[in-house]
Amino acid sequence: MIDVAGHYRGRRVMITGGLGFIGSNLAIRLAGLGAEVLLVDSLIPDAGANFFNIEPVQDRVRLNVADIRQPHTMNYLVRGQDVIFNLAGQVSHIDSMKDPYSDLEVNCRAQLTLLEACRHHNPAAKVVFAGTRQVYGRPDRLPVTEDHLVRPTDVNGINKAAGEYYHLVYNNVFGVRACSLRLTNVYGPRQLIRHNRQGFIGWFVRLALDGAEIQVFGDGSQVRDFVYVDDAVDAFLRAGATDAINGEVFNVGGDEPTRHADLVTLLVSLSGRGTCRFVEWPPEKKAIDIGSFYADSARFRARTGWAPAVRLRDGLAATLDYYRAHYAHYVPETAA
Amino acid sequence: MIDVAGHYRGRRVMITGGLGFIGSNLAIRLAGLGAEVLLVDSLIPDAGANFFNIEPVQDRVRLNVADIRQPHTMNYLVRGQDVIFNLAGQVSHIDSMKDPYSDLEVNCRAQLTLLEACRHHNPAAKVVFAGTRQVYGRPDRLPVTEDHLVRPTDVNGINKAAGEYYHLVYNNVFGVRACSLRLTNVYGPRQLIRHNRQGFIGWFVRLALDGAEIQVFGDGSQVRDFVYVDDAVDAFLRAGATDAINGEVFNVGGDEPTRHADLVTLLVSLSGRGTCRFVEWPPEKKAIDIGSFYADSARFRARTGWAPAVRLRDGLAATLDYYRAHYAHYVPETAA
Repeated sequence: MIDVAGHYRGRRVMITGGLGFIGSNLAIRLAGLGAEVLLVDSLIPDAGANFFNIEPVQDRVRLNVADIRQPHTMNYLVRGQDVIFNLAGQVSHIDSMKDPYSDLEVNCRAQLTLLEACRHHNPAAKVVFAGTRQVYGRPDRLPVTEDHLVRPTDVNGINKAAGEYYHLVYNNVFGVRACSLRLTNVYGPRQLIRHNRQGFIGWFVRLALDGAEIQVFGDGSQVRDFVYVDDAVDAFLRAGATDAINGEVFNVGGDEPTRHADLVTLLVSLSGRGTCRFVEWPPEKKAIDIGSFYADSARFRARTGWAPAVRLRDGLAATLDYYRAHYAHYVPETAA
Repeated sequence: MIDVAGHYRGRRVMITGGLGFIGSNLAIRLAGLGAEVLLVDSLIPDAGANFFNIEPVQDRVRLNVADIRQPHTMNYLVRGQDVIFNLAGQVSHIDSMKDPYSDLEVNCRAQLTLLEACRHHNPAAKVVFAGTRQVYGRPDRLPVTEDHLVRPTDVNGINKAAGEYYHLVYNNVFGVRACSLRLTNVYGPRQLIRHNRQGFIGWFVRLALDGAEIQVFGDGSQVRDFVYVDDAVDAFLRAGATDAINGEVFNVGGDEPTRHADLVTLLVSLSGRGTCRFVEWPPEKKAIDIGSFYADSARFRARTGWAPAVRLRDGLAATLDYYRAHYAHYVPETAA
């Protein structure tokens, strides 16, 4: 139904957060499809930007380092872009509770700057926003559909919700075509594994690679669903290629809800290294924990034909292979 | 059940937005109850601050003019306060669509500043936030309960939603006791009637006072519910006096859903002046309109014993009387 391959050939595509995890994987795929790719990244320390991420396509994409909160910069950069994948964001829940202002700047102000730039300088652009399942908070029922209340448990979730709502309002009021994908736990090559503040799955992969002890909070019974990054990329490409879903939000999750304990067992078995230990919840994490979560992505599947293609076992194996081959590019020696 | 009168005697109470519409009415009531009242207001031009609002109690309350986004200021001011009524806000939907950044500063950053100040310098404070029915956007069903999705139609509604969520997270995670009242259309003495960008009801009152033409958009069939400011004040006092509702949000609305056309007819009849004319929707207002709205406040009533006491007809009559007596304090000569 959606001709993803054909849609992006010769198309001008901008990716904010383009040196990050999903952004770089998207860039590699888009370059392969013949798109003219512009990556915008602010190189915020401790965030996901990594120049090695775009090593396979570094001669085929353009990079503009810039602060996305800067209106003049964004006014210039958005001009002439056909599709904008808006992936720049602060993703650490814990950091947002230590410094809520920085989270506000990146996840709210920067989103307004991008949308204002489109409104005034490129109203014909199509924008796809990287939302998050985090906006739901602790679910009332499983699986979680888009009709579930938005009730974030931390500042990061609140600001990501606001960033998403801005996109819908600019779509509805100013005609800047936009939609949002509420991603669950995305994993795969090019994710930050340098520290443990960007989601647990990258960190578990890192510990398995290192043959270290993987600490699981509580009894490991909490359930999550996982999306391999290639499937997430496919979701973004589909969303960017259809106007039928403008103004809407969609869950994009995996179809193998998995207990933390089982995830770690699988990782340890695939890597042949590492151990699992159950530990008490650290109070600052328990306070913002959401219990079990997995998403119902039926709406997005029905509207775009998307379906996750990579099984968790295969995705984790590919992820471990990638980092084994490129470990030094993701774990600096001082941190190893 | 809740001993409002007894609760506030000798209690230290801070009101942000204290020179504004609801803030000043609350201050007058609290001074009467024997509270030690500190008003904080940033005197943002075009917002609701009016020194005449506190004329009846100016010798019995303290005023501190300050930018609520300023951390050091707020760190100092919150110290020792028992209850904080957090009413400071930018309320214009239209302004938020022209300048979303200013709205972000007041409705998001300033809320974080207040809550961070409480977290670090007065974690025992109780905070009551002035939320808004605007967070619901265009309702799926009427009357609207708190289980309705949050789906704002403009930037102001988004930022007010974020401001509200911050309060809940600081309650749940940091123990700063907080709750939010989602007010519908509050009206009464001390509302800004200088310009038409702070809700239509104050403006309709102004036009009726002036004997001018009141323009109603469309056919006037859109329904709203209204809360007289004394009833809104009573709701805040009850919320501030009970810990049983911490971490929750509540609709606070009127019980006489009324068509715009009927509201204007009533106003014209009560004032003996003014006329009603139906006009086309201005496009920038139509784009963010929510159709008919009225709230179900059963949850707040059940939990606090609150009920609106003032009928719309009586409230409007009292409002007209107030402005007739004090017109010059609300409509500067150059704007008359």
